[in-house]
Amino acid sequence: MESNENRHLNILLFSGDYDKCLAAFILANGAREKGMTVTIFCAFWGLLILRDPERLSLEDKGTYEKMFASFTPAEAEKLPLSKMNMAGIGKGMLLNMMDEKDTPHLRDFLEGARKKEVRFCACKLSLEIMGFKTEELLPDIEVIDVYAYLEDAAQADIQLFI
Amino acid sequence: MESNENRHLNILLFSGDYDKCLAAFILANGAREKGMTVTIFCAFWGLLILRDPERLSLEDKGTYEKMFASFTPAEAEKLPLSKMNMAGIGKGMLLNMMDEKDTPHLRDFLEGARKKEVRFCACKLSLEIMGFKTEELLPDIEVIDVYAYLEDAAQADIQLFI
Amino acid sequence: MESNENRHLNILLFSGDYDKCLAAFILANGAREKGMTVTIFCAFWGLLILRDPERLSLEDKGTYEKMFASFTPAEAEKLPLSKMNMAGIGKGMLLNMMDEKDTPHLRDFLEGARKKEVRFCACKLSLEIMGFKTEELLPDIEVIDVYAYLEDAAQADIQLFI
Repeated sequence: MESNENRHLNILLFSGDYDKCLAAFILANGAREKGMTVTIFCAFWGLLILRDPERLSLEDKGTYEKMFASFTPAEAEKLPLSKMNMAGIGKGMLLNMMDEKDTPHLRDFLEGARKKEVRFCACKLSLEIMGFKTEELLPDIEVIDVYAYLEDAAQADIQLFI
Repeated sequence: MESNENRHLNILLFSGDYDKCLAAFILANGAREKGMTVTIFCAFWGLLILRDPERLSLEDKGTYEKMFASFTPAEAEKLPLSKMNMAGIGKGMLLNMMDEKDTPHLRDFLEGARKKEVRFCACKLSLEIMGFKTEELLPDIEVIDVYAYLEDAAQADIQLFI
Repeated sequence: MESNENRHLNILLFSGDYDKCLAAFILANGAREKGMTVTIFCAFWGLLILRDPERLSLEDKGTYEKMFASFTPAEAEKLPLSKMNMAGIGKGMLLNMMDEKDTPHLRDFLEGARKKEVRFCACKLSLEIMGFKTEELLPDIEVIDVYAYLEDAAQADIQLFI
């Protein structure tokens, strides 16, 4: 079995669903633990995990941008489930099941990923459309365009769209 | 940094959501602008972006096929959002935010991708199940089977399921 | 055109939607027919396709686990559509359209994939969170962790997150 060192995982995180983001971070953290390089490129709803709840601002925003900023979840832990209604299972139930097994929450996996030096990138175009400013994001997020994403993804051993 | 020329992006477009299709086309157009080869294999709901609203036909269709053809969006621009209800944000709001930044609509990205010679393929089995005929699709769409998709994807540098 | 032999398809099946699982199995079966190696790593909702309706058990389960086990679909064929409400199309309608073209159901594709020796793996962490036991799954499912998934995926020619 070949070593995972020098290997590279690239995730395009499009989703803003709690469960899908959880999957992305479990993969990212696992890959880092095995020495892989990991890039997470957050686009569209995936940007929502990068917002810093203490740095939100409504200044210099247009009407739609203000509405959007106000009504979307202000941080990762508040994201909804992709299957909210499946079998009547709510997010609270999933979190309870996770707590019973001492599984960390999304917030913890996100923190872990940042400590483990996962490279977090925000999609420039998505930021512009949604009206989020770099100052509203968590510290040390790179803003890159689609060309830079493609360059990174093409060199990766695993590319996933989540 | 290696050149993107001779690189190859393969997208399996399963989704018929406006926002996910937008992501697929932004990637496809960006890749073409950097000289990459791009294949988009449209299957299931992804077929809906390939319909030509001026070539729809109910002839020679069974009852279910007629219902399906009538009730599904007749062109890319009419697709719904994947998160219609998230935070009360409707498609109209997203389009307004895009318009404020002069971001092209899905229709424009689709047209751009066709001009830039993205290779568009329709999944043979999906066409059969949904009862769409090749004559109802945009011109110059190749109809290929899952084996041909796998062949193309296995040779690509980036494969994404969107 | 290069042969597909010795090629490798790796699918991370996160979704528990009928249509998305159908897509995953059509790809998996097609790849096996061309001699490719195929791994399907079932995580989160994707675990639902691995449950054996004749081996369900509520023994040794906590309250949430019991609720979860009881309210989720007990087998692949009972999974819901990802687009249940799109254009009012229900799963029954899709199945009718498939039947008219003699397209096999998800249950048949799953059986086919197992006969064709697709390697089915269940995500260890997801099993724990959801409270499913190995004895409740179809026979011959390997339980692996995220590191083993990454090892397999990094060596594959095609990796998809479905």
